[in-house]
Amino acid sequence: MKEQEFLTELKEMDMLQQALAILEWDAQTGMPAEASNARAEVSSYLYGKYFSKKIGPKMSEAIEYFSQHPEKLSEVGKAALTLVKEEYEREQAVPNELMVEYSKATANAHHAWQKARQAKDFSLFYDALKNNIRLTKELISYWKKDEQTGYDVLLNIYEPNMTTETLDDVFSTVRDGIMAIYQKIENYGIKPRTDFLHRKVAKEQQQKFVTKVVEDLGFDLSRGRIDDTIHPFATGINHQDVRLTNRWNETDFSMGIFGLIHEAGHGVYEQNIAEKFEYTPVHEGASMGIHESQSLFNELVIASRKSFWQKQYPFLQECVDGTFADISFTDFYASLQQTQASLIRIEADSLTYILHIIIRYEIEKMIFNEEVKVEDLPQLWNDKYEKYLGVRPANDLEGILQDVHWSAAEFGYFPSYALGYMYACQLYYAMKKELDVDQILKSDDYSAIQKWLSQNIHQYGASKKPNQLIYDASGEALNPQYLLDYLQEIYFAVYQISE
Amino acid sequence: MKEQEFLTELKEMDMLQQALAILEWDAQTGMPAEASNARAEVSSYLYGKYFSKKIGPKMSEAIEYFSQHPEKLSEVGKAALTLVKEEYEREQAVPNELMVEYSKATANAHHAWQKARQAKDFSLFYDALKNNIRLTKELISYWKKDEQTGYDVLLNIYEPNMTTETLDDVFSTVRDGIMAIYQKIENYGIKPRTDFLHRKVAKEQQQKFVTKVVEDLGFDLSRGRIDDTIHPFATGINHQDVRLTNRWNETDFSMGIFGLIHEAGHGVYEQNIAEKFEYTPVHEGASMGIHESQSLFNELVIASRKSFWQKQYPFLQECVDGTFADISFTDFYASLQQTQASLIRIEADSLTYILHIIIRYEIEKMIFNEEVKVEDLPQLWNDKYEKYLGVRPANDLEGILQDVHWSAAEFGYFPSYALGYMYACQLYYAMKKELDVDQILKSDDYSAIQKWLSQNIHQYGASKKPNQLIYDASGEALNPQYLLDYLQEIYFAVYQISE
Repeated sequence: MKEQEFLTELKEMDMLQQALAILEWDAQTGMPAEASNARAEVSSYLYGKYFSKKIGPKMSEAIEYFSQHPEKLSEVGKAALTLVKEEYEREQAVPNELMVEYSKATANAHHAWQKARQAKDFSLFYDALKNNIRLTKELISYWKKDEQTGYDVLLNIYEPNMTTETLDDVFSTVRDGIMAIYQKIENYGIKPRTDFLHRKVAKEQQQKFVTKVVEDLGFDLSRGRIDDTIHPFATGINHQDVRLTNRWNETDFSMGIFGLIHEAGHGVYEQNIAEKFEYTPVHEGASMGIHESQSLFNELVIASRKSFWQKQYPFLQECVDGTFADISFTDFYASLQQTQASLIRIEADSLTYILHIIIRYEIEKMIFNEEVKVEDLPQLWNDKYEKYLGVRPANDLEGILQDVHWSAAEFGYFPSYALGYMYACQLYYAMKKELDVDQILKSDDYSAIQKWLSQNIHQYGASKKPNQLIYDASGEALNPQYLLDYLQEIYFAVYQISE
Repeated sequence: MKEQEFLTELKEMDMLQQALAILEWDAQTGMPAEASNARAEVSSYLYGKYFSKKIGPKMSEAIEYFSQHPEKLSEVGKAALTLVKEEYEREQAVPNELMVEYSKATANAHHAWQKARQAKDFSLFYDALKNNIRLTKELISYWKKDEQTGYDVLLNIYEPNMTTETLDDVFSTVRDGIMAIYQKIENYGIKPRTDFLHRKVAKEQQQKFVTKVVEDLGFDLSRGRIDDTIHPFATGINHQDVRLTNRWNETDFSMGIFGLIHEAGHGVYEQNIAEKFEYTPVHEGASMGIHESQSLFNELVIASRKSFWQKQYPFLQECVDGTFADISFTDFYASLQQTQASLIRIEADSLTYILHIIIRYEIEKMIFNEEVKVEDLPQLWNDKYEKYLGVRPANDLEGILQDVHWSAAEFGYFPSYALGYMYACQLYYAMKKELDVDQILKSDDYSAIQKWLSQNIHQYGASKKPNQLIYDASGEALNPQYLLDYLQEIYFAVYQISE
């Protein structure tokens, strides 16, 4: 077999994925309401074409041949082979009937979850969740390699090479550290004023401001676009076409502004993967955690820094026509960093968000490594919220029913969010050794920041594993202390706490 | 073979076409500028999948089997077989090498045409056009059936069952009739005031007005949407998803308003084809001419009637916030019907437009039935413009280089536009026997008009041929007198000519 044949097969798979990505983008951004069934049929037909290639005879032949003759592959071919082989082996390991049962189970579970939410009653979701867990455990038995725990297997779907052992360590440090920061703020902090955050800012005013900001941060609109959706996302259709979506709220402008800055981090990543990887699975992010690190670098590092807002606040004031004319810079900046423990993950601030993730991690690990009973989960959930965040859900909707993930059997996904926070801060401290980040943020030219990220992270796409990327970029393995240092710096300053 | 197998193959082809249609819509409405090459690769890959089904073994088997056993097909299957068979036979008749040569030639001709336009010099397009004509003649030799003239073959690609014999008759009546109307207007007409047509009307104001109008005319936004493009079009993705696009000009509001009303005619047609034909080639318009008749029914019949504007002008005034407060209804209505002979087809008014088409028809017919020399075409073009429209192009860009069609070898397409005008007017006079159209247009409820069109035209999709549709709807064959009567009524009223 020639490498070209292998690459052509990958390209055809990639083109099917591009079509699917456009169909999905369209379904989210503006497809007529009545068209969803017909669209589902088209997408499922094209996905079938893609999947039958992914596990088809040509792929199997290529994997077998090039695993024995790696010298016949270019750098790109080699990187692609590694990824393709991992996926192929995972797909091949599982009996087809199990996958069919799994598909049906998750579809049913989604309906059960929706019903349970309406009734705010976990018992209506109980059977479906139990079934999702049972089937996931069965899948684990096919996927498991020697020393892995069950939960390691799930983690690795989203974050290759990550282990429960590492996360236990890291998360206990982070959990205690954040709780300590939060306690100090609660006890000694001076709360910032936040009333003016709900003043009306027209969508067009927000767009004017944030579009300029994301372009400054490196998002290239000649190879991308920005649309409206209910749930914001970023999607890399191909090297020349990366799309962000955003939701605007005229009485809560910070949502739309931080939202788009966040998505732009994903977008700039996709736009700066080396073009040589195009049309292969290497032209993707390295993992969910690394992808999230790029969006959070924008949101948490850049857009939470005083230096950034020193530069941008005057421009924001220009865009909003005097809406904040009476608000001093100090008050404005402080208002953006308010923290308040709460029940709902997706509404949480940057400091407390990670505790929501750690709660889910601890529970998921118990489910897959320690055989906790499903009926005990709501109580477990509520107890942990009370212990870590000091708040207790009044019902299951505010508690265990809030996330869609378990209904889709996406166990092992949640830690990616927290990894993203830690990676982002670790990258920031590495960057600071080479760049005066605050000086750059006060200037008209942010390009050095994007260049550093592209050089150290973006360009590699999925050709390096996450742990390798982080090690190469920062000179050390994942270290949660950077996150704690960063959060402490930002929040203590705003809450006027001297260390 | 079971009918179900045949219908499944058609459905898969249709789903590939749906994906292609979304990709094309996206390319026209907002794809990032840099993405066009990558998009072309994806579309061409999916088109290849579609085409190999279209001429593939399953289709060949189905055509052979069901042609011998038509009794095994349902109504839908029968209608689909007829269409599929026609296309299959046309595709099969032509040697593959010729199609490849033809593809290359048209791609080259498009570049040559663009260069020639820049230089305003037909000689730069001469070779390519000659080659397009030569190859089209070769194709005709494969497609031709017994008594057809060469140009009949081309006509039938766009308008099944139409003949040069019929068009010669019809077009000479129309040409003489329009020239007579136009002469009378020129000699005795009182020109309407038109200066205020260029007052600024914001895009949002235009949208507010015309979106309501097209919904009133039956366009269902729960199964459709409206976007911005450079070249307006309508595209039926599937029964639940029909999209219109429009171009807005703030200093020439009538363009955007008539443009969207026109496209909505196409859209309402696509939305009201009987759902039973879904996922087959019967769920399409009957022909280019019939499709155009529906858009022109909206534009020329409905939106040119005094009764329509009597109802809508107050609403327009409301939408534009007093921009036309000083303009009387009579002046406003008259301004929309101005006519002025001109050189450029796409800028022509409803009266003179048809003469532009007839010129192209006469020249195309000479090319394919009478062996005119290609080098003589510019002169021929200019002479006909002078004779029929009284204007003479100063250069080839204003003349023979204005249309893209010949560079794409789309000979035989132009007559569809004129057929659309004639069909639209013939349908109007048929409708008037059953409905008081002007009374309906003055009312709040236009649905009876859409119902009549859906019942007589839309619902049949491509299951009836155009001549059959027109006969069944109006009780007679194509009759150009209705167009002349209609144009005379509208224009003489506006130009204050008593007959």
